[in-house]
Amino acid sequence: MVRRLVKKNVRKLKPYQAEEIPCRIKLDANESPFGFDSALKSVEGLETNRYPDPEAKSLRQLVAKSWGVGRENILHGNGSDELIYYLIAVFGGPVLCPVPTFSMYGIIASILNEKSIAVPLDRNFQLDRMRMLTEIRRRKPHLVFLSSPNNPTGNSFDPEVVTDIIRSSRSIVVVDEAYLPFSAKKSFVKLLGKYPNLVIMKTLSKIGLAALRTGFIVSSREIVEEVNKVRLPFNVNALSQAAAVAALQNSGTIRNAVDVIVRERDALFHRLRDLPGVIAFPSDANFILFRVKDADRVYRMLLRRGILVRNISDSIRGCLRVTIGSPEENEFFFKALKKIVQTA
Amino acid sequence: MVRRLVKKNVRKLKPYQAEEIPCRIKLDANESPFGFDSALKSVEGLETNRYPDPEAKSLRQLVAKSWGVGRENILHGNGSDELIYYLIAVFGGPVLCPVPTFSMYGIIASILNEKSIAVPLDRNFQLDRMRMLTEIRRRKPHLVFLSSPNNPTGNSFDPEVVTDIIRSSRSIVVVDEAYLPFSAKKSFVKLLGKYPNLVIMKTLSKIGLAALRTGFIVSSREIVEEVNKVRLPFNVNALSQAAAVAALQNSGTIRNAVDVIVRERDALFHRLRDLPGVIAFPSDANFILFRVKDADRVYRMLLRRGILVRNISDSIRGCLRVTIGSPEENEFFFKALKKIVQTA
Repeated sequence: MVRRLVKKNVRKLKPYQAEEIPCRIKLDANESPFGFDSALKSVEGLETNRYPDPEAKSLRQLVAKSWGVGRENILHGNGSDELIYYLIAVFGGPVLCPVPTFSMYGIIASILNEKSIAVPLDRNFQLDRMRMLTEIRRRKPHLVFLSSPNNPTGNSFDPEVVTDIIRSSRSIVVVDEAYLPFSAKKSFVKLLGKYPNLVIMKTLSKIGLAALRTGFIVSSREIVEEVNKVRLPFNVNALSQAAAVAALQNSGTIRNAVDVIVRERDALFHRLRDLPGVIAFPSDANFILFRVKDADRVYRMLLRRGILVRNISDSIRGCLRVTIGSPEENEFFFKALKKIVQTA
Repeated sequence: MVRRLVKKNVRKLKPYQAEEIPCRIKLDANESPFGFDSALKSVEGLETNRYPDPEAKSLRQLVAKSWGVGRENILHGNGSDELIYYLIAVFGGPVLCPVPTFSMYGIIASILNEKSIAVPLDRNFQLDRMRMLTEIRRRKPHLVFLSSPNNPTGNSFDPEVVTDIIRSSRSIVVVDEAYLPFSAKKSFVKLLGKYPNLVIMKTLSKIGLAALRTGFIVSSREIVEEVNKVRLPFNVNALSQAAAVAALQNSGTIRNAVDVIVRERDALFHRLRDLPGVIAFPSDANFILFRVKDADRVYRMLLRRGILVRNISDSIRGCLRVTIGSPEENEFFFKALKKIVQTA
């Protein structure tokens, strides 16, 4: 009886599996190895009985300043996930994404009963310029999501191609800069004034604050106002607002942690590249995609040693994705992987 | 150009005004006057860099036990608001509500482009049994939202009428028990086994934990599974999960705070009832609805004395809603109101 009342698109869905796999070294979720305990002290003074600031004024002020825009150009979300929900609720589909990419764009489009269009990346994991432009012209998506650096491939998209897509399309183009802090590439924020259809997404989840669930949209005042209409009034709780503000006030500490991760990533990449039986792909993010002969076996053997990575082989043949951990974790991972591929 | 891409239903929306009005005594938002500072200690040990438990296992376990159901009967939300979003995404519209009631049911239906149907309460703010049953039969809503005790009227709906609606309708009936802790009425949770179309909503926001944004659905395993499909995987952040668990482990403290509020409400109700120029409506919630001659004037005069209440006169002629505060706040409010109505 209940099933009859469930919308058809939802009936077909499966719940997102964020399963917990026991491990000693967790390198599967693109989390930072470094937390900011001291930021949690800031929640102590809060009144638990009062609703959070619905406008998240202090937090938006702080990030607006650091990204060189006004507070009216920022919208706050319960993680980027919630902002993807809102963007699709506002602009509808079709939703076009290159694939493989972050799976939530497509999942949320299905939840909201909007069509999604997947355009394969080229063999270097770059945007296929011609194909993207053709599909956008032909299918007229309302939203295009471009994660750059891209997850799970790790590379940044060619900024010229991204700009081409923004310029030549009549869609809203969302550049998801979740992994930008680990890249030497420039943010697209500086192009906001030039392209009225541009939306940037940012998150604190990859730089040590995943526990808080805090993400942002950076865009024109007009787009922010439209998206704000579908936002739940108290969507970012008071504890996360306070802790995020406290952490961001120590931007030097965050920057230092990111620097360590970048150095570790580059060192690990060179070691993986030189390891026979492993093909590592260059990364601008806080993870590395690599190919092995038997991905399922290597995944299981790593897990047997207590190391959890992400098995991507369903979408990219033979590939696993490892998040950059602490220096000790990376060392432990590399040694384990070396042993596993040598005994293949 | 952007506006052309915005979905028609969203173009017409206005953003929800959760405006901050400066005041000394905040009695407008149905918050508890009592917070639980000590619960915030529990966030200290958290790793800010790790994603929250997507399943909120400890928290769900705890509330499941206290409500006498299994963990599989509970779904957690970033406040009830998010769960209303999810329920409407899963079951679609039309969405039927008695009015006046909590405004978010209708607002979220509009956001998700689903029709809503408003059925007026009778002159005692009770469900109009015949009219409700007729409209449900005729309009075939997919969802019916019944907030009991109801906001902003404060009364509980007749449980027999609610049961009638659940039994005789082929809709999902959501009984929102946000204010039930302040009432002597029984929860509808015990009827879950009997009615497969029944969903209960609960929240921690009214009992001293509004800062956390934590709400729940209690329902059959089948319904919980369907709603879980549209849930964002990390929708309740780690800080709120930890603080909620810590607070709920001291259920005695919460209960004591609720008892004080109930006593204060009853005392304030009797004083208001006896005040010439004021008609107070009996309340099972943590607020009281009352009618005065010139609601706009009384609202402004209270605010001039630093007291913020909610002006409901747009939807219920001449009515204001005052949240029960601390004994001192209630005393201050009553004296101020008395002076204002006596000098009218």
